[in-house]
Amino acid sequence: MQLQSLDDVLMEQLADLHSAETQLVQALPKVASSVTTPDLKMAIEQHLEETRGHVKRLEQAFSHLGTPIPNEHCEGMEGLLKEGEEIMSAQGDPTAKDVALIAAAQRVEHYEIAGYGTARTLAGELGYGEVEQLLNDTLDEEAAADKKLTKLATGGMFSSGVNQAAAERV
Amino acid sequence: MQLQSLDDVLMEQLADLHSAETQLVQALPKVASSVTTPDLKMAIEQHLEETRGHVKRLEQAFSHLGTPIPNEHCEGMEGLLKEGEEIMSAQGDPTAKDVALIAAAQRVEHYEIAGYGTARTLAGELGYGEVEQLLNDTLDEEAAADKKLTKLATGGMFSSGVNQAAAERV
Repeated sequence: MQLQSLDDVLMEQLADLHSAETQLVQALPKVASSVTTPDLKMAIEQHLEETRGHVKRLEQAFSHLGTPIPNEHCEGMEGLLKEGEEIMSAQGDPTAKDVALIAAAQRVEHYEIAGYGTARTLAGELGYGEVEQLLNDTLDEEAAADKKLTKLATGGMFSSGVNQAAAERV
Repeated sequence: MQLQSLDDVLMEQLADLHSAETQLVQALPKVASSVTTPDLKMAIEQHLEETRGHVKRLEQAFSHLGTPIPNEHCEGMEGLLKEGEEIMSAQGDPTAKDVALIAAAQRVEHYEIAGYGTARTLAGELGYGEVEQLLNDTLDEEAAADKKLTKLATGGMFSSGVNQAAAERV
């Protein structure tokens, strides 16, 4: 890794996010098939489609910057996805497992919110307006996905909420 | 891992956060010694002290719940800290490296914001008011630390900001 300038830092951020989103596209189908709460399953499937769009936006960003897509592996996302794997393979109540998977998914969303927040700001400071806009569009979708997960867990979208459903089974 | 109930999910969240904070206490002294921007170094040293307090609050939470501290390893934080290690060992301009370390630190803060947000909400729903308060106190400090890092990178605390300083060196 070379970090000689802010341009290098921006490239590093974009490469990290490209690896993170690509890993997520691979992982989300298994997550969607393992959850049992219908609205949660639908939300994950919708976010899988959005995530495919995020990969494309990053590829557009590299294209704008005239840079080939770097071959980098995001260690942060790898760790976050391992946590999701541990929950999916755990024994237990399906609704309690869904609550734990929402928690893991929100860690993923927050990883991306932090990453896109930094990359968007750097792109703006360096005068790459089109890249800034692409990153901002994704940042908005990640923040919306995080809020949707909070609503699913705490009851805004369900009549009682996943947490309540699990509490009732205890 | 057993996830039979929301209590199990809460315990799992607390065990994950305890491992995450403990790993962070081990990692932050090296981060503080590797950065060159004085205000950033000071912010990291202050957050190391806060992080020691977060470990203690989690231990108080386990004590309130009458549960021994579980022996768990947080894979998410391990991945995030690997990213920090990669930046610290990178070649480059010291200020550009500081910007990249701020980005890595904000990913850590967002991991914790997501984790404490979930754990706080679960503790509240399960009626563990004292645990909810402990987790909320830490959540507030993590959110404040994240905002401080944004200010450091974008110029609120410095006259020109770390990003500007790195751009000037390009």
